[in-house]
Amino acid sequence: MAKARLHQQLAFIVEIDKLKQVFRQNLIVDGSRRENDAEHSWHLAVMACLLQEYVDEPVDLVRVLKMVLLHDLVEVDAGDVFCYDDEANINKAERERVAAERIYSLLPEDQREEYLGLWLEFEEHRTPEARFAVCLDRLQPILQNYHTGGGTWVAHRVPLAKVMKRLAPIKDASVELGEFAEDLIREAIARGYLTE
Amino acid sequence: MAKARLHQQLAFIVEIDKLKQVFRQNLIVDGSRRENDAEHSWHLAVMACLLQEYVDEPVDLVRVLKMVLLHDLVEVDAGDVFCYDDEANINKAERERVAAERIYSLLPEDQREEYLGLWLEFEEHRTPEARFAVCLDRLQPILQNYHTGGGTWVAHRVPLAKVMKRLAPIKDASVELGEFAEDLIREAIARGYLTE
Repeated sequence: MAKARLHQQLAFIVEIDKLKQVFRQNLIVDGSRRENDAEHSWHLAVMACLLQEYVDEPVDLVRVLKMVLLHDLVEVDAGDVFCYDDEANINKAERERVAAERIYSLLPEDQREEYLGLWLEFEEHRTPEARFAVCLDRLQPILQNYHTGGGTWVAHRVPLAKVMKRLAPIKDASVELGEFAEDLIREAIARGYLTE
Repeated sequence: MAKARLHQQLAFIVEIDKLKQVFRQNLIVDGSRRENDAEHSWHLAVMACLLQEYVDEPVDLVRVLKMVLLHDLVEVDAGDVFCYDDEANINKAERERVAAERIYSLLPEDQREEYLGLWLEFEEHRTPEARFAVCLDRLQPILQNYHTGGGTWVAHRVPLAKVMKRLAPIKDASVELGEFAEDLIREAIARGYLTE
């Protein structure tokens, strides 16, 4: 029985390896290639550890880490959808819900409930932990775009208003990180990566 | 002053993006390419969350996660050294110590001390947290080798005795995970991935 449980957990651990082959629009910082979801999730987890001091409401770091580590797992089935592609985002929520049901069901029941719950919490920005996780998920790509000469902003000519809307949740978790993001956007405008 | 601190932290966060371009010997589970250190670290972090129940001594999960997320960071400067290449492992410790000094010095002093300390703790298998982190670091590649038709074991004709020595630390953290690893090795022998 205990062995069956461990084998279920390990089957999930093997299944999620697929996240290493789900590629995002964003480039890695050296500009050489697109980033995948596993790398992105790792980066957010490190950021959560290092930047926890800036959150405005206290958070349970373990819950934040569990959230960021698996927040994109549904993309194993549902694929990565570029956040600025309005058409591709139609039905995204439903596709991801079906994916979450399938993938988390590989886990033992108690862990299925825990991780499915954390994913929904993240999606709904429902708690301080979820708001911090979302904040990091919005902050990391602007660092990458800034350090790759504008990255996806330039490649897809993303309008400034759309970028600003996308970044709004940063300040919901942290006024200080929100101010940093605004400074960086001002600098990106000055460098011609974004136009007003 | 607070801004200077945040800028230091973000410079570190940008620097460690390089871990996405440090490739290991191991293949990802679909066998299509080698895995990089960021992906590997992400995978260990998820495993830490899911398999904590199997450790024989209680652990502080946040400390384990901080350890596994950055345990390979020194390889940004020192490179990945194949664990079964004895020659390449000469002077590895010294090269990695120099790398750790440089990279962690990008952080504010308190975080430099914390993360450098966690890395040394991991390297020395010194605490229950370190032993669990090491256990995961040894467990993950055998899953990958097993699921890629023997992977690096076959490609480099690694002798079974060397593999067994490499896996010994798994049971130092968890008798149950140690037994699982032994079962998997027996199955790998039966399939011809390793020879007695």
